[in-house]
Parts: sequence; C-alpha cells; structure tokens
Amino acid sequence: MRAYQLPKGGAGIDALAVVERPMPKPQYRQVLVKVAACSLNFRDLGIVRGSYRMPVRDNIVPLSDGAGEIVEVGPGVSRVKAGDKVAGCFFQRWVGGEMDPHAVAESALGGALDGMLAEYVALEEDGVVKIPAHLSVEEGAALPCAGVTAWNSIVHHGKLVAGRSVLLQGTGGVSVLGLQLAHAMGITAIITSSSDEKLARAKALGAACLINYKTTPDWDKTVKDFTGGRGVDHVIEVGGAATLTRSFGAIRYGGSISLIGGLSGGATELNPGLIFSRRANIQGIYVGSMQMFQAMNAAIAANSIKPAIDRVFGFEEVKAAYQHMAAGAHFGKIVIRVA
Amino acid sequence: MRAYQLPKGGAGIDALAVVERPMPKPQYRQVLVKVAACSLNFRDLGIVRGSYRMPVRDNIVPLSDGAGEIVEVGPGVSRVKAGDKVAGCFFQRWVGGEMDPHAVAESALGGALDGMLAEYVALEEDGVVKIPAHLSVEEGAALPCAGVTAWNSIVHHGKLVAGRSVLLQGTGGVSVLGLQLAHAMGITAIITSSSDEKLARAKALGAACLINYKTTPDWDKTVKDFTGGRGVDHVIEVGGAATLTRSFGAIRYGGSISLIGGLSGGATELNPGLIFSRRANIQGIYVGSMQMFQAMNAAIAANSIKPAIDRVFGFEEVKAAYQHMAAGAHFGKIVIRVA
Amino acid sequence: MRAYQLPKGGAGIDALAVVERPMPKPQYRQVLVKVAACSLNFRDLGIVRGSYRMPVRDNIVPLSDGAGEIVEVGPGVSRVKAGDKVAGCFFQRWVGGEMDPHAVAESALGGALDGMLAEYVALEEDGVVKIPAHLSVEEGAALPCAGVTAWNSIVHHGKLVAGRSVLLQGTGGVSVLGLQLAHAMGITAIITSSSDEKLARAKALGAACLINYKTTPDWDKTVKDFTGGRGVDHVIEVGGAATLTRSFGAIRYGGSISLIGGLSGGATELNPGLIFSRRANIQGIYVGSMQMFQAMNAAIAANSIKPAIDRVFGFEEVKAAYQHMAAGAHFGKIVIRVA
Amino acid sequence: MRAYQLPKGGAGIDALAVVERPMPKPQYRQVLVKVAACSLNFRDLGIVRGSYRMPVRDNIVPLSDGAGEIVEVGPGVSRVKAGDKVAGCFFQRWVGGEMDPHAVAESALGGALDGMLAEYVALEEDGVVKIPAHLSVEEGAALPCAGVTAWNSIVHHGKLVAGRSVLLQGTGGVSVLGLQLAHAMGITAIITSSSDEKLARAKALGAACLINYKTTPDWDKTVKDFTGGRGVDHVIEVGGAATLTRSFGAIRYGGSISLIGGLSGGATELNPGLIFSRRANIQGIYVGSMQMFQAMNAAIAANSIKPAIDRVFGFEEVKAAYQHMAAGAHFGKIVIRVA
Repeated sequence: MRAYQLPKGGAGIDALAVVERPMPKPQYRQVLVKVAACSLNFRDLGIVRGSYRMPVRDNIVPLSDGAGEIVEVGPGVSRVKAGDKVAGCFFQRWVGGEMDPHAVAESALGGALDGMLAEYVALEEDGVVKIPAHLSVEEGAALPCAGVTAWNSIVHHGKLVAGRSVLLQGTGGVSVLGLQLAHAMGITAIITSSSDEKLARAKALGAACLINYKTTPDWDKTVKDFTGGRGVDHVIEVGGAATLTRSFGAIRYGGSISLIGGLSGGATELNPGLIFSRRANIQGIYVGSMQMFQAMNAAIAANSIKPAIDRVFGFEEVKAAYQHMAAGAHFGKIVIRVA
Repeated sequence: MRAYQLPKGGAGIDALAVVERPMPKPQYRQVLVKVAACSLNFRDLGIVRGSYRMPVRDNIVPLSDGAGEIVEVGPGVSRVKAGDKVAGCFFQRWVGGEMDPHAVAESALGGALDGMLAEYVALEEDGVVKIPAHLSVEEGAALPCAGVTAWNSIVHHGKLVAGRSVLLQGTGGVSVLGLQLAHAMGITAIITSSSDEKLARAKALGAACLINYKTTPDWDKTVKDFTGGRGVDHVIEVGGAATLTRSFGAIRYGGSISLIGGLSGGATELNPGLIFSRRANIQGIYVGSMQMFQAMNAAIAANSIKPAIDRVFGFEEVKAAYQHMAAGAHFGKIVIRVA
Repeated sequence: MRAYQLPKGGAGIDALAVVERPMPKPQYRQVLVKVAACSLNFRDLGIVRGSYRMPVRDNIVPLSDGAGEIVEVGPGVSRVKAGDKVAGCFFQRWVGGEMDPHAVAESALGGALDGMLAEYVALEEDGVVKIPAHLSVEEGAALPCAGVTAWNSIVHHGKLVAGRSVLLQGTGGVSVLGLQLAHAMGITAIITSSSDEKLARAKALGAACLINYKTTPDWDKTVKDFTGGRGVDHVIEVGGAATLTRSFGAIRYGGSISLIGGLSGGATELNPGLIFSRRANIQGIYVGSMQMFQAMNAAIAANSIKPAIDRVFGFEEVKAAYQHMAAGAHFGKIVIRVA
Repeated sequence: MRAYQLPKGGAGIDALAVVERPMPKPQYRQVLVKVAACSLNFRDLGIVRGSYRMPVRDNIVPLSDGAGEIVEVGPGVSRVKAGDKVAGCFFQRWVGGEMDPHAVAESALGGALDGMLAEYVALEEDGVVKIPAHLSVEEGAALPCAGVTAWNSIVHHGKLVAGRSVLLQGTGGVSVLGLQLAHAMGITAIITSSSDEKLARAKALGAACLINYKTTPDWDKTVKDFTGGRGVDHVIEVGGAATLTRSFGAIRYGGSISLIGGLSGGATELNPGLIFSRRANIQGIYVGSMQMFQAMNAAIAANSIKPAIDRVFGFEEVKAAYQHMAAGAHFGKIVIRVA
C-alpha cells in the first residue's frame, strides 16, 4: 500500500515522499481502516518545519486527521465492526478521563505513531469514532484535531453553557469549528480576522460579533464594549505571543483562556499579575480524548453541523496542500482525498 | 396598595380575596418593586388546594412568580437600581452555591414569605434578577419557578451538552421552557402530550421527537427507538406516579431523572432495583438559586427565547386564572397582569 | 496451569472445580500475570448461587479480584512491565471517564470474562494497576471490587471532602474499606453492625460513631442525633430492602445515597416522594474505572492504609472460603492464596 | 466604642490610630459582633504600605480577620442568633457559588468596608460563620483570609483528594493552614522554608517532605525526586516573582498552580509556553465565599485542627503586631486580642 513518509521532523515540505509499505495487520483489539480522506493542521506544518515541540519519529507517516471505512477487525474487537465509517483519534491511547502523560507522549498519530496519510492504517478499537451519518468522509476527516481541541476548550475547560460567550481568533480549523459548535450550543461567538470577507463567512456560520483586527488593533476594547463592559467569558487562544496580553484585556473577571499550542509562535512574556488580577483561569489544551470526540460527534449530528472545508486536494497534491496551509489564507479545513 | 390574600393553605380558589395592605418599605439591601405581571405554577394551585407539602403562612399573598420595575431602593443596595425591570427569585435567600435548607424553608415567595400577587413588594437586593431586554414584563413574569426548575435540571443535574437528549413530559411551564432552553443549547428534545395539536406547537419550538402518550401508552419504547436503542440521557420527571417507572424504561444506562415535586400526585412505589440496574442518577429538584436564574436569563437573551404564554388574565380575573390552570389544558404559562 | 471453573451461573459452591487450562498468551497490549492471591466479594457468592443479575459465561473462571506479578508482556505494552506487582481491574475495558455500557457488559472479570482464580491470567495493559508498595499481595488482592466501589461512591458520587460524613452499613468489604478511606480523608464515618465486637474493631479503624442495629433498630434517629439533627451527608447503601427507607431517614436535606447492588436482596418498594422531599441524589454504583483504582491506590499508599483481611484460605480451600462468606460473620475481606 | 483607623491606604504603620466611633447598629439581616480577637494577613501590611492592589477606603478600620460573639441581631435575622461565637467573612457579600465582581469589589472587610479591628462591628447575617467549638476565639480569628484561601485552592481549584500532593511555600498563614488541611485530608504536603527549625515544626503538623530553599535553591528538582519523577499535583503559589518559574519545574504534567496575590511582589515575566507544555491549569485565587468558610470549619472541627498561632498581641500593641509581620519571621498567624 502507498503512504507518504517524512524522513525526519523538520525535513521540509519537499522531503515528503510517497513510499510503498506493507499492508498493516490489525492486532488484538485493533481495526484496519481504508483511509478515504485526511486533513491538515498547523501542527503538521510545524512537524515538517521542525518547530513542533512534541516527539516525532523518523520516517513517520504524517497527519493525525483522517477518516475512512473499517475493512477488517482484529481479535477481541467488539466496539466497532467492518463497514463502519470512522475517523481516527489524535491520541490512540487516551480513551477518556484524565490525560495520562504516558499515553499522550506515545500515541499521537503522525508524531509518535505513524499517521493517517496512507491508504491503510491499523488503529486501536478505542482509537476510532464513528463519523456522523450526515457527513461526507472528507468532512469526517476534518474533525479529529481541530474539532476535539475546540470541544475540549469550550465544554471541558470553559464549561460554557448557553448565554456565555467565547472569543475565537482567526479562521483556522480550531476557530471555525469552535464557532460552529458554540453557535449550536447557544453560546455567543465573537471572532477576529484580518479579512472582512472571512468575517462575512463567519457571520453566516453564526458569529455574533465580528472584529477585523487589522483595522481594529485594540480589539480587546471592542470585545469589552460588545459584552457591555463585562468582558468575554472564555478565549480559545491560538494566536500566541501577539495576542495573549490582549486576551487578558478582553476576558471578564473570573474568565478563562485556553492556550492552544499548535499555533503559538516563539516564547513570549506574560505578566502573571494579569492572571491574578482578573482571577482568570488559564489551561494548556492538547486536543482531547476519544470520549470527547464521541460526544462532539453527537453534537455535530444533532445539530447538522457541516465542518467548513476550505479546499480538497488529491493524494498526489499533498505538497501543494501543505503550501496552501503555509500561505495562511484558508478558512476552515484543508483536506486531502486519499482514495 | 392592593394584594390578593389567601386566609390559609387549602382554603380553595374562592377564598382568594383582594385586600388593602400598607405599602412595603424596602429595608437595608432590599428593593421595592412595582409589580406589573405574575404567573401561575402548579405549586400555587397546590397551595390553595392544600396539597402542597411545604409550609404556607396564614394570610399569605400568593404566587412566587412576578416581574415589574424597581421604584425605590433601601440603604446599602448596589447590585440593582431604581428603574431596573426585574423578576423576583422563588427563594429570596438562595443566592448561589449550595442549597441551604434554612434559606429554602424560610424564603419561598408565596409560601413562607408573602408573594408577588400585589401591586408592590419589597424583595432582597439579591432576590431579584434583571429580565432580558427583548422580553415584555409578562414574559419576564413567566420565568422564575418553571424556567429556573428546567434550567437547574438540564444544566446542573443533567449536565447536558449539545448532542445529549432530554425527555419532557406534557406541555406545562417546566416542560415547555425546558424544551425552549434545550433547543437553544443543541440538546435533542423529546416531548409527550395527550394532544396532537400541542405536539405540533412543541415541534415549532424545536422538539425533535413528538409522542402522543394517549395513542402511544408505551412511550418508553418509542423513546428507546428514537434514540437508536440507547435511551434518552435525561428526564425531567413532572408526571409523578403515572410516569416514573416508564421513565426508567426510557433512559439510557447511566442516565438521569430529575424529580420535580410540584406536579407529583400522591405517593407511588418505585423499585429501587431500577435505579441500580440502569446505574441511574435520580435527583429531587426544587427550583434553584438567583445565580441560576441570572445564567438562564443570559441564555434566554443570547438566543432570543420568548417563553410560551398560554393566556393573560387581568388582576380582577385571578380566580379564573387559577381555574384555567386547574382545567389543565394550557400550553406554557398562565399570566396575570397586575398593573 | 490450574484454575477453578464454574460450569454455569447458579451451579452452587460444590460445582466449583479445579481444571487444567492452557497457559494464556498475552496478546497485543496485554500482560500475563502470575496470580498470587484472590479475594471474594458478595457478587461472587451471587454468581455461584444464581442470584447475580449480570451475564455470567458458562465454564467461567470465577472472581474479579486478584493480584500477582507480571511475568510476560505482549507486543505494544508500555504502561507496565514484567516484574510489576499488579492487581486486575474489575472491568478490563473501563479505563477512565464515562462508563461505556458496552465495555461494562463485556469486560467484567469472573462474569463476562474469565476471572482471577487461576495460576495465570492474561489481562489488558490498561486493565491492571500497580499495588501500593507497602501492601502484601494478599492485601493488594483485597482492593479491586470493594475498594473501587467505596472510592467511586465517596469521591465521585458523594464528592465528600473533609468535614463531611458518611454512613457505612455492616462490616463487609465495601463498608470496611469505605471506613478506612473516609478516615484517611478527614471524613466522619458512622458505621452499623449487629456485633459490638465488630464495632470495636471499626472504632480502631477510625469510625466516629458506632451503632449496633440489633439493639438500636431505629438507627436513622441515632444518625440524626449524632449529626446534631442535620443528617449524614452520604450513605453507601449495601443493605438493600431492609435499610433503604431508614437511609432516607438518616440523610441530610440535599444528601446522597449510593446504591450498591451486590448485596441487595430482592426488590423492595421505595416511595419516590422521599427522594423529592429530601432533595436527595440517588446513584446506582457499579465498581469503577482503572483510573479510579489508580487514584485510590495513591490514597492508600500516601496514608499507609492496610485493608482489613478477615481470613486467608489456601488454593485447595476455595469452597470453604465461599462458605465462610456465606456464613456472613466476617470483618473485611476473605482472601485465597493462589501461589 | 474604640477602633483602629488608617487615614489612607499607604499611610504606614505609624499612621494607625485608635479612635472613638459610634456603636454600630445592626440593620435588616445584620448582626452586631463584639470582637474578641483579630489576625493579620500580608494583605493588611500591603494596605498600610500602599502596595495592595484593591481599593481601600479612607479612614478605614483595618483587618479582614476577626472573631467574637454576636450580641445583637437586626430584623429578619434567622441564620444565627445572639450568643453565637462567629468569625467574619472576608467578603461580606459572597455567600456561595460564583464570585460576583461587584460583591468582591465592594464587600471586602478592612478594604472596601470597615474591618474587624474594632470593639464592635455590624456584619451581614450571611457574612459570618460559627467558629468550631474546640477553638478559642483567637484561633477562630486566625481562619478567615488565610484559611479560606488555602481551602479554596486545595478543594475548589486543585480538586485534590487523598493521595494527591500539594506544594506549600514558606510558613505564613496560607501555607501553614494549607498544610494542616492537606494533612487532615490524606493529601501529601511538601513545604519549603528558609529555616530548618520551621521545617521541623511543619513536620510535626504533618508535612511529608521538607525543603530548605536556602540550602536547596533548585527545590523544584527535589520536588520532582520526592514524587518519583512525576511532579507535584498542585502548588499554592504565594511567593510571586521569585518562585513561579520553579513552580512550573515542580508540577506534574496536567498539574495546577493557584496564584495567591497577597504575597506577590512586583510584576514578573512568565513564559506562557510553560503553561502549554505542562498542560497546566493556573488560577488566580482571591479568598473565597461564606459557604467555603463553613465547609472548611466542618473539616477543622471533624479533624480537631488547631490553627498554628505565632504570637498574640494586645489591642494596644497593634503597631508591634504589624512590625512583627513585616519582620517575616513568624510561623502561622499573628493575632491581636481585642477584648
């Protein structure tokens, strides 16, 4: 079977190459998935560029995100069956409950473990989730990393309920899926972008407040004004250095900020007095568990959410897909069709 | 000022009489509210009939639910101000956090304390909440008891998030507000009624599954089927004796049932083995705190929810309003206009 | 290798027989454990008697509880290693987070899956936990079912913190381990027994209030008095029919009752009005997850808790061990030494 | 009646002066407390020095912490009664549940409101808690600010249960009460100090790991070693600039750090990448609610905890008490006897 392979973390986009690999054999409580589509995350760009902070195995098959059909099950499998349309979970060994550092370090697809950019992949029985019935397999492939990150931040960290508000930064995968989920939950979504055209698309997806951060560089004040001076309840902070201090200007007293690492640039300096004086809660978020993915899919199904897909590339166009992400002009997810 | 008065719990609808009472004077951290509208709950019917299980003071001014405008503030008030449109909280002394049995026993409006069916009432500063700006004062008066009960059940007991499901029984105030809140949160709502016409109205408010329990007496099976055999996540049990065992047939393994007392008829017998074998969680719910009311109002405002009002009566028509509730054919809330 | 086998659920103690079985081979992410000791639970008695309500496979190797040493690991194992002293988890497939009905139904040791009463057993890598270093392997074998049940009830259902109180019924495994855990957590423990001698032993383990329910049949009043009229915060209800209504008499307004099924006799009738009028929370508890077991072991290690062991039987004395449990005069756990 | 008064925030210790003030009159739902003892917190030193960041009213009566006897109750009071021994709550208007920024800003004793360093003070009925029966009034006066801060951090932020671990910095009030509470809860306490003699006292109170940060400047490594390489679960960070980065070196993956503001020196710089890479949770903590105080007192009573008191000063020795705190050599709380 064919798969893409990266010789080494940081080897660059041009080092990605198609190789022939032996067909994987599902072991005890594993399933064999025929991959139909994958999607890209900033983390994947970081891996080829060498800026990703987590371990990357040599000759790794890249990408955490992919979906397809189970074509064979190993012994002992009872949770899913052949014929099920599933997506892989970012962490193959984080089923639910507390994040185990051991499982997190050793089971990330496309980093510690071979990922989804292959025709076939063997995954743990508890490392897949069924994709909602109303979604295409391309849409299913858009969910694992960005969607679960947004869900974890909104539901588990922010504990947001209807009537609360969330600030989303930019129109990458996490922010756009976060917007769609928040809207379905009755949560007021505020979104920033450098493009009025993208803001218009965000509005169509349910954003209640649109801020062009190019023309409104002090967007924290706009957020305060929009919330009647109170501040936003929660921020999904994907911007890193450039935005964190402003996020403290935007949140309410007692509000929360999720730090999403994939997008953060280099280190920056934060005055911890800001955390204290806002009685804020700050949490580092690293995707989430299989159970979170399952719960999110129930929400997506019940509310007929269609993940926004920016563009679909063919299996031969993988480098172009990475370059499209590097260009940074996308809205929503960049997908690669595998089969 | 004028107020209705009930000589004694159980004295009957005809015993309700308009009396002249001295204008209340707001004390330290109290506010004076000019009442514009009230609404009825089954509990209020239970109080005049003598079937309500909580203490009722003699010569009580009835009704927990009412809204109006603050016309004067006592010393020390800083949370609200004259001119604010507010609703009273069912419990005047349950601000937030844990339910204090002492505060609950002594501070229920229209039971332990004089209620809202008066032209003026003095309430605690922390015993009122601003009504959402898009609501009329009649709509604001529809929220305190039924709305907060539904919110407490869905958010605090059921901990439901988008993608979960809730079963609502009948089309009284708790069930219809529960339906509207669930729909705004992306939660799948299943509702029962004896009337297809009411089910059609519930559908317009967002119900995903409609069950006529007259024509489908084994509605628990219908719920199981609708949820793909899994069962519903949560039940707001307002039906009492007649429905509780069926509710166990309808919930999923690990699901939850809120017991709402106001509607329960006499005692019934429950096999506790049902609780164990479904690993269910059962909770007695008694309205909720001021902070819950405030959070619910934020949800109502953000999602432009309009509480369903069945009919509005005048201040002189209070007995007719009680009789309308006794007839049991309403959909949503029965309101009394005071001023 | 040798193992005990029960031809059929309900076949009786005398049907237990030693058989030769092939040495199990650990598969992908499994480990091979050389069992050193097992312990009995009422559930195991229910299985041989036919009164247990969950599925039991024919020719099952009995017992959920056992501990020993990992002597071999299958491919892909990284969480534990050969040489580790471990106990098996009651549910082989409930790692953490939400209870999955599927995993619960199919992965209980000694019921759906072959259990621990064998010289060797292959378990899931995520289906074992290391036993605290200060414990013997017999003590480690005493923990899985009773200990995790008590932990789940106290920590996850009751959410008890220091200063709260818990009522424990009798001196079986769940109650005595519950007492030891509660005492270590600063939680006030109240315990009942029919024997003053056992109550004296419970006092030595930290019980703050001792009630002989033979001489004090209205023990709910004693609990109320001991708690200054307020009532106990939480009950671990293992008594079933005979005690549940009294437990409602003993809990505080807003308190909670865990229903532990293993001990419950036949069905009984409960007035659901008791749940509502006490604003109680009732939860069916069925052991717990691997993560709960791990967290409990940390508590046991940090507080040097030694599980109370009633008596240790040899591998040839298994029937006598079951009969000792049937006699019901034990205090703490009944252990079988395997190797 | 006599009271101390500070003309202005930042006026210095020598500006503290005894004045005559009219006897306060308890209003609706207020109580009059005859103060018997007060205690000092670093925050109080910050107020006289001008380094405290929250609003301080001119001519304020200082100190948040004090205890005494209710000698009169205003109208409407039912939660407490004359004769009750009570302590005042830091925030007079944070009863329970969520922290309301409004209540927090306007109701802190000895800052926004006149404090406890007076012979009599009128407090809200919901702004006092009964002190545990086994404590002297001096010990009761030691609890409000430091105790509730530690409780909030351990129970509400850290959600620590038995078997978890907490790092305490130094031997001020928050750290020593945190140590005593943690020990009673079965939580492993690690404590730092510059003095071996103080560490010996901490050991007697139950500390499991003692670190002299003078002789062991890289104490984060010692914490890692003590926890078997895993890191501590939770840090109550009172050290500010000097210690925060080391605290990140000490916590486990997924651990938490409470930022306690009172002690923090000036601003410092924090690399937010530390939060992300440790998946840490950081929370600014500002004392807590009346309900937290009440729950802590239950824990203190059930476990016979005696707050460590460093030294008791007379009402005429208030300046000396402040200077003793400024010297920074105390262990536990500094108390002033008022009556």
